Amino acid sequence: MINFQFHMPTRIIFGPGKLNELGTTPHLPGRKALIVISAGGSMVRHGYMQLVQTLLAQNGAESVVFDRVQPNPVLEHVTEGAALARAEGCDFVLGLGGGSSIDSAKSIALMANNPGNYWDYMPGGTGGRQVPPNPALPIVAIPTTAGTGTEADPWTVITREQTREKIGWGNDSTYPALSIVDPRLMLSVPPRVTAMTGMDAFFHAVEAYVSRARQPSSDLLAQQAVSLITSFLPQVVKDGSGVEARTMLAWASTAAGLCESLSSCISHHSMEHALSAYYPDIPHGAGLVMLSVPYFRHLTRYVPDRMVDLAYFMGADVDAMPAKEQPLAFVAALEKLIADIGLDDLTFSAYGVKQSDMPKLAKNALETMGGLFNLTPTQMNERVVTEIFEAAYR
Amino acid sequence: MINFQFHMPTRIIFGPGKLNELGTTPHLPGRKALIVISAGGSMVRHGYMQLVQTLLAQNGAESVVFDRVQPNPVLEHVTEGAALARAEGCDFVLGLGGGSSIDSAKSIALMANNPGNYWDYMPGGTGGRQVPPNPALPIVAIPTTAGTGTEADPWTVITREQTREKIGWGNDSTYPALSIVDPRLMLSVPPRVTAMTGMDAFFHAVEAYVSRARQPSSDLLAQQAVSLITSFLPQVVKDGSGVEARTMLAWASTAAGLCESLSSCISHHSMEHALSAYYPDIPHGAGLVMLSVPYFRHLTRYVPDRMVDLAYFMGADVDAMPAKEQPLAFVAALEKLIADIGLDDLTFSAYGVKQSDMPKLAKNALETMGGLFNLTPTQMNERVVTEIFEAAYR
Repeated sequence: MINFQFHMPTRIIFGPGKLNELGTTPHLPGRKALIVISAGGSMVRHGYMQLVQTLLAQNGAESVVFDRVQPNPVLEHVTEGAALARAEGCDFVLGLGGGSSIDSAKSIALMANNPGNYWDYMPGGTGGRQVPPNPALPIVAIPTTAGTGTEADPWTVITREQTREKIGWGNDSTYPALSIVDPRLMLSVPPRVTAMTGMDAFFHAVEAYVSRARQPSSDLLAQQAVSLITSFLPQVVKDGSGVEARTMLAWASTAAGLCESLSSCISHHSMEHALSAYYPDIPHGAGLVMLSVPYFRHLTRYVPDRMVDLAYFMGADVDAMPAKEQPLAFVAALEKLIADIGLDDLTFSAYGVKQSDMPKLAKNALETMGGLFNLTPTQMNERVVTEIFEAAYR
Repeated sequence: MINFQFHMPTRIIFGPGKLNELGTTPHLPGRKALIVISAGGSMVRHGYMQLVQTLLAQNGAESVVFDRVQPNPVLEHVTEGAALARAEGCDFVLGLGGGSSIDSAKSIALMANNPGNYWDYMPGGTGGRQVPPNPALPIVAIPTTAGTGTEADPWTVITREQTREKIGWGNDSTYPALSIVDPRLMLSVPPRVTAMTGMDAFFHAVEAYVSRARQPSSDLLAQQAVSLITSFLPQVVKDGSGVEARTMLAWASTAAGLCESLSSCISHHSMEHALSAYYPDIPHGAGLVMLSVPYFRHLTRYVPDRMVDLAYFMGADVDAMPAKEQPLAFVAALEKLIADIGLDDLTFSAYGVKQSDMPKLAKNALETMGGLFNLTPTQMNERVVTEIFEAAYR
């Protein structure tokens, strides 16, 4: 029986060249922005940061820049960014870049308007489980990668380094008020990052499609995202210069982000968070890829029909297969996709992960991101999670 | 190239039995509701009104009832309802019933919080084209028919009787803050009303699918709505007692409502508004049905591929047809659907429409609802619109 809540209040402006609307939109949610970008410098090198500042000024808004964000963003910089936003009297926060910058913008927006420490509000691990008394400052999201989907969901993922906890969280106030998705900003993303971020989007869609929280709208969007990523990601990894193919991936990523709002990720994401909490050099998309084959092989036993659907949307000729092979057609198609985009060389050991870490990672996944286990279509205890980690070890 | 704005901020709670959440939801947008229902008395007869009042009370909210709404709701009652909301100090407006009650609730919510006359703000016909200085009071929508989709869009359609103008309008503040779609409330809808409202939903989806404003999300939702209505409407018209089939139609209607937010209706709706502005006894769905075959036959010339898609989603075996017959497969499937639900007996003449009215109706459609002509995938001048009206005359 169909049964769901639909809620996705973000206004998304999507299309090649649409960044320019930042200069004219009547929907800017404030007059002074804290612009949050990564410490890597690419937003300045590509000129995106200056362009955003110019467009904001054109639209009558001042801006201040916070440029300390790391690839796996950390609590300390949320605190710093929030202090800067308060000191400068910013009334909204604009995240420009990949997921780390936009997620940091969300968490900074929350803490700029709330007392205490960000971790007081985290609902897992050592988090204080408090409810923030105030909403976040309004958030604007301008993604420059096709992957995270954070422009279309309320979620923000921050790591607390000293306890190795990487927790995703969000509330109604952390949906961006406005997101501008301009695929032209993604033309400069290098092949390896394109591949990894693309697979993050892919798994958002796949997980949303099997999640207990799924609904008809998320099913439709997930199907389209899976299909588009399978078709376009290998091609864009080979040649990322085409606006049309980049646009298809950008839409797939936003569609998968909508899925994260309308349905949810599942424990595959919890497990990856444990991995990159301990090994912050592992990009999120890489961690997901390394875990994915044993993870979804395990899941196939419990939701075989959904897995057949997913294989079908990946273009597998499922009908031509013997019935008993059909459920695993998704895992086969997934392995092929990973190879086609050159990510089949990823291994835990190359990132320095030790085989003896597996039980610790399983425990961490369950403790810090336990909520997503409840939305996974089968129960997974610590032993099962450990076994999947071990099966993924190479 | 994909290029769109996605914005649909309403929180929709959907599912059989979900009305009960009105008693517990933390998302009630105020403490005192004006409940807007139709003058017909069905909401009281079925006990829905009393139930809504009880649930509101349980959730700590007072309520006052305005029960004057007509099937084609009129300006005069918007003014009256808004005066009552102000006099009673209501801080939100709850529409319970079909599209007429919910649309009235939206317009009353606007006028309870704004000066002047509702028509001052209408952007077509004799409307004053002013921008309302204030947002509407928050709106809660509880539909009891599967048709209008108004629970998932900002639109409200009101008739100004003395000038025969029926204008659809909306702004960001007329999206419901909260909609509860409970298919159980639809079990009591009689077959003829089920058929007519179902076809309203059908055309929202079809029009959104061919509109110039379409986007990937609306395409997906429209495909699903068209497919579900084709499958379930004939069955529910025959026997409306099944919750599962009613749920499928309720979701199709809400999905088609989402399409009205993410894409748009087109001039088919403008033409129907002209018809029922002059002949308010014509239910909206009936007017659409009577116009639809000549309207979409005309449109097929300009968007043949989209029409083939629609036929395909209606289950037509398009591939088996000769290529030149394929585009008109949609019109054929439409005629069959209309016959299957027993609406092939509808005629203009039975409603007292005069053949000599056609030029006047065409002029009215273009003057009062001209905006939708701009979103129609081909230009239609007064002569073409008159010809379609004439072809629909029986």
